[in-house]
Amino acid sequence: MKYNAVYGQSGGPTSVINSSLYGVIEEVKKHEEIETLFLMHNGIKGLINDDLKDYREIPQNEIDLLTQTPSAICGSVRHKLASFEENDEEYQKIVNVLKEHNIKYIYLNGGNDSMDTGKKLFNYFKKINFDCKVIGIPKTIDNDLILTDHTPGYPSSAKFIANVIKSISYDNDCYIKGRVNIVEIMGRDAGWLTASSALAYPYGPDLIYVPEIYFDANKFLEDVKTIYEKKHRCLVAVSEGIRTKDNKFIFTQKAKDVFSHQQLGGVGVYLASLVEEKLHYSTRGIELSLLQRCYAQTASKNDIDEAIECGRKAVQYSLNGLTGIMVTMERKDNKIEYNYNSLEKIANSIKFLPRNMINEKGNNVSPLFFEYASILLNKDNDDKYENGILKFSKKNYF
Amino acid sequence: MKYNAVYGQSGGPTSVINSSLYGVIEEVKKHEEIETLFLMHNGIKGLINDDLKDYREIPQNEIDLLTQTPSAICGSVRHKLASFEENDEEYQKIVNVLKEHNIKYIYLNGGNDSMDTGKKLFNYFKKINFDCKVIGIPKTIDNDLILTDHTPGYPSSAKFIANVIKSISYDNDCYIKGRVNIVEIMGRDAGWLTASSALAYPYGPDLIYVPEIYFDANKFLEDVKTIYEKKHRCLVAVSEGIRTKDNKFIFTQKAKDVFSHQQLGGVGVYLASLVEEKLHYSTRGIELSLLQRCYAQTASKNDIDEAIECGRKAVQYSLNGLTGIMVTMERKDNKIEYNYNSLEKIANSIKFLPRNMINEKGNNVSPLFFEYASILLNKDNDDKYENGILKFSKKNYF
Repeated sequence: MKYNAVYGQSGGPTSVINSSLYGVIEEVKKHEEIETLFLMHNGIKGLINDDLKDYREIPQNEIDLLTQTPSAICGSVRHKLASFEENDEEYQKIVNVLKEHNIKYIYLNGGNDSMDTGKKLFNYFKKINFDCKVIGIPKTIDNDLILTDHTPGYPSSAKFIANVIKSISYDNDCYIKGRVNIVEIMGRDAGWLTASSALAYPYGPDLIYVPEIYFDANKFLEDVKTIYEKKHRCLVAVSEGIRTKDNKFIFTQKAKDVFSHQQLGGVGVYLASLVEEKLHYSTRGIELSLLQRCYAQTASKNDIDEAIECGRKAVQYSLNGLTGIMVTMERKDNKIEYNYNSLEKIANSIKFLPRNMINEKGNNVSPLFFEYASILLNKDNDDKYENGILKFSKKNYF
Repeated sequence: MKYNAVYGQSGGPTSVINSSLYGVIEEVKKHEEIETLFLMHNGIKGLINDDLKDYREIPQNEIDLLTQTPSAICGSVRHKLASFEENDEEYQKIVNVLKEHNIKYIYLNGGNDSMDTGKKLFNYFKKINFDCKVIGIPKTIDNDLILTDHTPGYPSSAKFIANVIKSISYDNDCYIKGRVNIVEIMGRDAGWLTASSALAYPYGPDLIYVPEIYFDANKFLEDVKTIYEKKHRCLVAVSEGIRTKDNKFIFTQKAKDVFSHQQLGGVGVYLASLVEEKLHYSTRGIELSLLQRCYAQTASKNDIDEAIECGRKAVQYSLNGLTGIMVTMERKDNKIEYNYNSLEKIANSIKFLPRNMINEKGNNVSPLFFEYASILLNKDNDDKYENGILKFSKKNYF
């Protein structure tokens, strides 16, 4: 007997989540046991509300473009399922939709919250003895899911950030006296993305601040001063989530001033104004904003291929009878192998940047981070790139 | 008898100014009349201070990388020569350096200020009867030099902006309810760059505001409201230089509040906070900042080729005995032909976006702008681009 499958996306967009969808579709086609694949509109909401699309209605040329299409083409959602012990209304709706469409395989493509949804569905199905396989496909630019070497989405964002940093470094180098440029990078809890700015080496930031290390404004000003006096310019990368020793965010966008006017700008702009006020250097706060998660035009080829493969593996694992798992990537001899681990273990944990990937002073990465990142960007589109970073003429020759 | 030539860069960086340097170097090699080419360090300052570099000291592989290297590799400068009638001290220094190095050809690569420098040198040389040819090579992302169809630098920035806008549009489309995203784009006086956001069509901004049209905050709020109520999201592109009817900038970064704290953020962030305050929609202000002039990773192939050719033409024109001119591009049957015009005419004028390239309401471009822009990005690196814009799967199929 043939069954159907269903696929959904959730959380923040990335450049390559649609590549995982491409992988799922192309793998489903290979297996006669699956009649068709439905796509949830706006993630789990689409499943609850029976808002699904049969992939066979989609022209193949549109499917082929998925590997270069950013965002979440099926629509995303941020919706937390209640605990079914307390309220199983939405679970019942979901089971009805699954039964109605003869669905036996669910693929959830997302980050921590999606894995939490998967875990809950898996446990509910177990409780009511309903045979439906639940497989998580990892996705997050933040790279903060545990038990996987990295997550699809991270290498493309890392590649964009490193290339941006290299370009900004060149831009700032062209004047006799440069500025203090402070680049704000996404990452509320984990510093993986901000650390990736170092991959612009030797044009990486002079200073890198991540949420894993408490932020001390006085030390920061000292660091900037030391660099500026030597180089007459300074490039800083900073995570949006840096916190003081008492665990307070440095700058919250919604903070009100004494007139309860909304404060403008984020932590990068705030630190730039701090430098200007205290050290009187010319500064610029640069927020990479949405671009770091959606600028697909320089997505990592490697990342796209891995995202596709994670999609393919999800289908294969489900047909092997596995359930309650997420596809994982494991590093063996600096190559990636695919595996899986239980959603129970993965959901609701955060993988932080280890202390030994940060330098001793806490204001840059260590060589171990370069070792970790060395395999992430290793497929270049043409030979004038070097590990994902566009090569430039060296300034000192001119 | 053989003479030497000298080349300098000035003004704000672009992705392709170094491609013009590549063109100059490669053309100089072809002509025996020129012994060597010197590069000024930090533009005219390098010429005044005899801070020059012989291009023959530079390895060829570094020269080859110029076509993908952003910023201004020789170093830039913002230095206005005094009127020589009032003070000719710097002019005398320059003439001494030119004589010492047997230089008969000067190539100045820059925007309006560089053309002003060129014009002054040309007039001074005429006055003292000194035989040295002065040729301007156009460069500006702002596209605001007159008597040339467009300027090298503009197509690459336009391509980056249009691709960014398309990505942001996809990003904002993935939630059931989107935000009002307001993207701030460079351009103090002319709206060419902001207009280029429309090239993301049909994923271009819902609203585009340029400095050529006085900005009315109430009309703006009405425009946003109309779009948002229909689409549950809204994408706005706005020039940093928009002004009110009394010709005041909407938002000056250095404005102080009542406590003389420096205000943070630019016009995009300011307008986002205005929408949030007045219309209570969720918003995001996005400043493309330095990226729009330095992100060489998706530079326009067409722009690179034209920048190279402008460099080559400068050398050719100088050897033909021309002086006091800037290389120009002219459009003939939608192809670009190279020509020249006098620095006297070009310097210190601004080419605005014509009123008929803006729609009647003054809140978007007109079809004429698309006609103008149609030839700017027309060389794609691979077939999954369409006129410089990466193709994405269409959302309504999924």
